[in-house]
Amino acid sequence: MSFYQTILVAIDLNEDADRVIQKAHEIGLQGNATLTLIHVTEPLSYAYGGDIPMDLSEVQKQLHERAKLRMSELVNQHKLRAVNQLLVSGHIQTEVHRVANELSTDLVVVGSHGRHGLALLLGSTSNGILHGAKCDVLAVRV
Amino acid sequence: MSFYQTILVAIDLNEDADRVIQKAHEIGLQGNATLTLIHVTEPLSYAYGGDIPMDLSEVQKQLHERAKLRMSELVNQHKLRAVNQLLVSGHIQTEVHRVANELSTDLVVVGSHGRHGLALLLGSTSNGILHGAKCDVLAVRV
Repeated sequence: MSFYQTILVAIDLNEDADRVIQKAHEIGLQGNATLTLIHVTEPLSYAYGGDIPMDLSEVQKQLHERAKLRMSELVNQHKLRAVNQLLVSGHIQTEVHRVANELSTDLVVVGSHGRHGLALLLGSTSNGILHGAKCDVLAVRV
Repeated sequence: MSFYQTILVAIDLNEDADRVIQKAHEIGLQGNATLTLIHVTEPLSYAYGGDIPMDLSEVQKQLHERAKLRMSELVNQHKLRAVNQLLVSGHIQTEVHRVANELSTDLVVVGSHGRHGLALLLGSTSNGILHGAKCDVLAVRV
């Protein structure tokens, strides 16, 4: 038997996160797995074209703080012990793959819908999580 | 906690099936889940255009028998008890969804590569397993 040992849970910080975390937690129990929650925020500058010069760093900082708070709430709510929390800024698929590789993750858990959802899994071209994943991927129906 | 109770494992009948079945089995252990293995063969007539009239029923029957044998071997090999075995003919995604719904499956497990692999998961258009699934989907890296 080779239960999952290292699980990376990619979450939005909305109500869907509950179900995704719960599933990851259940599966992790069997192998006493290390759980890492990751939330990736895309820099505002990606969305904002930048035609009008504007300093977004303060807003970005606030978003980061709120995300941090929300993630802590989720961890407490699910009574997760010894869970790693990662808040990362960048392209979602890229960052999930990078962290999954760095941690030698054997399972990535992600919601199948929601803000990132299917787009995250499938990618707009061939850059979705499933394509590039070197490990198992669980899509939790949310 | 709501461990998976009803798991549908869609397999090719090649060496990749081992890993897919093993993972499904491990995850199922936790909730004492009912495992159903499904292998879908597309009718030869789908691939064969039919310009020259030809009776494929005998070949089809032989393929079915071999698949049945191979599936039994896999079940014995993995010492799976009380596992359901389904050999179905038709379009793969359609049949997996149909059976998943009929059995009120809460997890579909499928290999992420192989003959069906990604194509099965993602579909050529929007008919992949992930799109239409009403439950969680685990893509096992094979």
